[in-house]
Amino acid sequence: MRAVDIIIKKREKGELTKKEIFFFIEGVTKGTIPDYQISAWAMAVLLNGMTPKETTNLTLAMAESGDTLDLSTIAPIVVDKHSTGGVGDKTTLVIEPVVAACGLPVGKMSGRGLGFSGGTLDKMESIPGYRVNLSESEFLSQLKKIGIVLTGQTKDLAPADGKLYALRDVTGTVPSLPLIASSIMSKKIAAGAHAIVLDVKIGLGAFMKTLDDARELAEMMVSIGELSGRKVRAVLSDMNQPLGSAVGNALEVKEAIRTLKGDGPEDFREHCIVIASHMLVLGKKAGDLDEARGMVERMISNGSALSKFRALVQAQGGDINVVKDPERLPSASFVEDLVAPQEGYLSQINARVIGETAVALGAGRAKKSDPIDLAVGLFVHRKVGDFLKLGERLFTIHANDTQHLEVAKEKLLQSLRWQSEPCKPLPLFYGVI
Amino acid sequence: MRAVDIIIKKREKGELTKKEIFFFIEGVTKGTIPDYQISAWAMAVLLNGMTPKETTNLTLAMAESGDTLDLSTIAPIVVDKHSTGGVGDKTTLVIEPVVAACGLPVGKMSGRGLGFSGGTLDKMESIPGYRVNLSESEFLSQLKKIGIVLTGQTKDLAPADGKLYALRDVTGTVPSLPLIASSIMSKKIAAGAHAIVLDVKIGLGAFMKTLDDARELAEMMVSIGELSGRKVRAVLSDMNQPLGSAVGNALEVKEAIRTLKGDGPEDFREHCIVIASHMLVLGKKAGDLDEARGMVERMISNGSALSKFRALVQAQGGDINVVKDPERLPSASFVEDLVAPQEGYLSQINARVIGETAVALGAGRAKKSDPIDLAVGLFVHRKVGDFLKLGERLFTIHANDTQHLEVAKEKLLQSLRWQSEPCKPLPLFYGVI
Repeated sequence: MRAVDIIIKKREKGELTKKEIFFFIEGVTKGTIPDYQISAWAMAVLLNGMTPKETTNLTLAMAESGDTLDLSTIAPIVVDKHSTGGVGDKTTLVIEPVVAACGLPVGKMSGRGLGFSGGTLDKMESIPGYRVNLSESEFLSQLKKIGIVLTGQTKDLAPADGKLYALRDVTGTVPSLPLIASSIMSKKIAAGAHAIVLDVKIGLGAFMKTLDDARELAEMMVSIGELSGRKVRAVLSDMNQPLGSAVGNALEVKEAIRTLKGDGPEDFREHCIVIASHMLVLGKKAGDLDEARGMVERMISNGSALSKFRALVQAQGGDINVVKDPERLPSASFVEDLVAPQEGYLSQINARVIGETAVALGAGRAKKSDPIDLAVGLFVHRKVGDFLKLGERLFTIHANDTQHLEVAKEKLLQSLRWQSEPCKPLPLFYGVI
Repeated sequence: MRAVDIIIKKREKGELTKKEIFFFIEGVTKGTIPDYQISAWAMAVLLNGMTPKETTNLTLAMAESGDTLDLSTIAPIVVDKHSTGGVGDKTTLVIEPVVAACGLPVGKMSGRGLGFSGGTLDKMESIPGYRVNLSESEFLSQLKKIGIVLTGQTKDLAPADGKLYALRDVTGTVPSLPLIASSIMSKKIAAGAHAIVLDVKIGLGAFMKTLDDARELAEMMVSIGELSGRKVRAVLSDMNQPLGSAVGNALEVKEAIRTLKGDGPEDFREHCIVIASHMLVLGKKAGDLDEARGMVERMISNGSALSKFRALVQAQGGDINVVKDPERLPSASFVEDLVAPQEGYLSQINARVIGETAVALGAGRAKKSDPIDLAVGLFVHRKVGDFLKLGERLFTIHANDTQHLEVAKEKLLQSLRWQSEPCKPLPLFYGVI
């Protein structure tokens, strides 16, 4: 078998066999196929697509390109969750403790933020001492012991995906649905998930801009699940405006803790309840979504979810005092409100612009190597559809630099669209696949 | 400007600007754009195409990526000729001396054979002592002195094309019309041509299998000529069966010399007259094709063309005795006829299979680094449309190895298709663009 023939087959819109895909991915992993062949192949895949069978084989080949975790001793059905990324999306911080408190162990390997989109690891690192670099054996023993882990991806998990992604990033081959779907799913499968709830975001602050694209990606991942013997449910959720109120690392941790205490923004709380409920149903801890919702609400109201979060922080070396008193989290020097410059109905709070504002404040990275400021960020106090009077509070900016503060003010006002007629609030969800 | 943005633009079917193309090709030449970006770009070009403007800019950018020859002191209009390659195509060996004998200087840089398709340099090297590695200054002084040069491409001509081609070869990005057209044209323009006659081959033994593809390629190259201020004429010619009779290096030189002496296979002679006539018209040595044909026939019948060939061989260090006595060329140990195994009309003599047979005999290369045997090859004595009786001579095989001889016999019989009803001979040409 020769790599060039596999490229040519895909160039000619052929369907690659399982053997061909495994040969190619083995070559990617071992370095026997040079980068220039991988990138030509990736462009051919992007432009000519892949069948569900091909995408599944690509997923499995990448999942098997390195270590794979066997979590079957932990629980009969291990459920993982993945969000395609957005602004203000601190869902993992709430649903993991909730689901674990319901008796379904959750060990999650998360990523860092890049561009306007935040990352769970960065958020957790705003808790002093919290370690995100557990070894595989630490991961397994903690999951067994307390039923909850939240750490970074170990190096040996799906290395082909890592290599392929790095190459796609610099060759214009990122936005290919089969490549995106297989990248996400390969890591989840390698990490030992038997079932996966996918939170596919749609809108201005998401990778997928349209419902059609998001649905296609979701369907592709569900089909990978079916073809590879994993249960997959995809929830299509809105990312036109930020989720919840807080955007920025320590600020989002605060909001997650508030939500675990039964408080927190209504949209974010509801979002977490729905995602957690799907996980409980997939993990057979609840018979249906209604039963699951009851369990989730109980775990929040009786303090079990918060305890689980505290146990997580403690197990990974974090300062548990922040759970009781979130004011101990890193805080910014300048805190300033931004008020409505006019009267009217908010018809847009552009999540992407909000995310970029957080990056401009120092909360995120433009490049992977950029340092970040855990304390800075902002709160969005209102939602699309709200009516505001002139001078009503809209945002609170947390900055460590007055210049950044001014830039943020300007950008935040640009994120808004106003209208004089009433407009509908945005839905939280667009469907389940 | 970033290479990745140029890749993305082409991925999204955008039209690249002149600036973008020159930036990209400069990066290819200087090595500042890595191979993996070049190959992703090449695949995007292959699958999404290029406009005539883009293709012209790509041609010019590659032509200007290294040295360019200025031949305007040699003649007011320097005419070059390029064949897209085929089996038995020894046209250059005849038309160069003919055209030069008409007073139009021709300095040609040719290539080697690869796969089933032969190369002019290999053929000329079967003349003992003949040098194909002239320097640029040798090239220019010989062209000035005797009006004819036939050598290899100098290293510094269109280096971006060389690099791009090597990468396309291993990344499945060869069969892209804009990439093929710009590759051919960039070398001709860098080599100083003011006008170019393109011999675009069509059929089983050609790169272009269909008339439509060949016409598209031809039109593309003519349009590059128009947009870059060069006169280009493309002749569409048949390559379903071999051109002439000889296939193999020394054998083809023999046939070319026979043709220069006024003999030679009728189809090959006519092909040479037509191509040479177009060159003379483009070079303004003749007012029209009829006048040009008269000049060409005269130069052959009065011996001027043969003298010019002798002068070429002498100037480049070759043994001129072979011109007088071609039997001095390398010859094979085993010469054997292959006769018609049945009676009937020949409806196919597959040029590709014939070319592969020559490679199997040792006349060509499967890989660039393979050595070749200059003496071996074969003669095809009949043409499509001919009626043969059982036992009539069809091929003569020249081999240096009895095993090769047996393989050749078997392959040659496979190259044929027979029918009992009369069938038309193949045309020599399909049109001029």
